[in-house]
Parts: sequence; C-alpha cells; structure tokens
Amino acid sequence: MPLTETQWSPTEEKIVKTAFDTAYRREVASMMAEVKRQAEAATSPDELWKLHDFLSARRHYLDGKYDSRDSMLIFVFAQLVKEGWLEIGELAGLSPDKIAKVKALTLV
Amino acid sequence: MPLTETQWSPTEEKIVKTAFDTAYRREVASMMAEVKRQAEAATSPDELWKLHDFLSARRHYLDGKYDSRDSMLIFVFAQLVKEGWLEIGELAGLSPDKIAKVKALTLV
Repeated sequence: MPLTETQWSPTEEKIVKTAFDTAYRREVASMMAEVKRQAEAATSPDELWKLHDFLSARRHYLDGKYDSRDSMLIFVFAQLVKEGWLEIGELAGLSPDKIAKVKALTLV
Repeated sequence: MPLTETQWSPTEEKIVKTAFDTAYRREVASMMAEVKRQAEAATSPDELWKLHDFLSARRHYLDGKYDSRDSMLIFVFAQLVKEGWLEIGELAGLSPDKIAKVKALTLV
C-alpha cells in the first residue's frame, strides 16, 4: 500500500457515505426536474430523442463522477463542493488534513 | 434486379410515404405519452434509469422497424397493420396484389 494513500477511520467512512449520498441525491433531483421539464414539453420525436440523449449523457457522467474508491474521494468531494452539490461544512468530522486537501482542490 | 422485387409507381410512393409517416407519428405519440407518464411519476434515480432504458429500447426498436427500403415495405406495413398503427384502408391506391400481400402477411 503506498504511503500516500489516504486512510479513513470508521467514523470518517460514515461521514463519507452520508456526504456522498447527499450530493448524489441533490444532483439527481436537479437532473430529474430537468427530465420532467423536457418530457412535459416534448411534442415531436426529435424532442424525445433529445431527452434520450440528455439522459444517456447524464447517466454516463454521473457513473464516472461518483467514484467511491478511497483514493478518489478527496477529488470527488472537491468537485462536488465546487459544483455546489455539497458544502464543505457537510464534511465536518473528517480529519483536518483531509478537509484542507478538499478546500485546496476547490481552488484549482 | 431480381424479378421478385416489388415495383412502386410514383403515385404508390406517395401513398407509402403518407402511410409510413402516419403510423410512425401514431406510434411515437403513444410512446411519448408513456415517457411523459414515467417522467412525471419518477421519484428515484432508479426510476430515471428505467425511463432511460425504456427510451433506449424503443428508439432502437423503432429505428429497426421503420425500414423504408422498397423490398421491406410490404413486411413493414403488415406488421404495422397487425399492431394497430395503420389500417389496411390507409393503403388504398396501392396495386391489388400489394394490398393482398400485406393482408396475407397480417394473418401469419
């Protein structure tokens, strides 16, 4: 195991899971609102296929983005904070160095 | 050109196009109603992905089914009549042998 790998305590793992699920739920809720809007407005086959393309792209994007491997979490959290799906305060309870890393990455 | 290939007169080609478009519009309208229903009812990510799967499957199915190659039209029309997207009367103006072929194929 490389020395640089981030270690997560059992308490931190619970915080991670909650934060991950919260951000995912928010992002999907936003996407769901857009899907409902597009579906309601659709009047032609082309608009249906556009909705299909939108769903395909978002599903693929979310599958790749919500990468729950330990080594990726800091990066994923930083992205979620930058995009507004998560607040840094919702990571409270993680070790100060992890919080600092997430904060630093939100600035780049 | 094989002797068995079906020939279509310019008048028949117009009837074919109208019938094809009519059936397609009806089938897509039915699909659209189902998409709107699923989108409106969706409350979870799984239901969104189910809607995506439904759209993927129907789009693929329709792309394959509405095959406008001359050699396929008799078969496509027979299928559309069987499924209720087209009425045999909407093919009026095609030669009697073509109508007879479509009718015969709706029975198999």
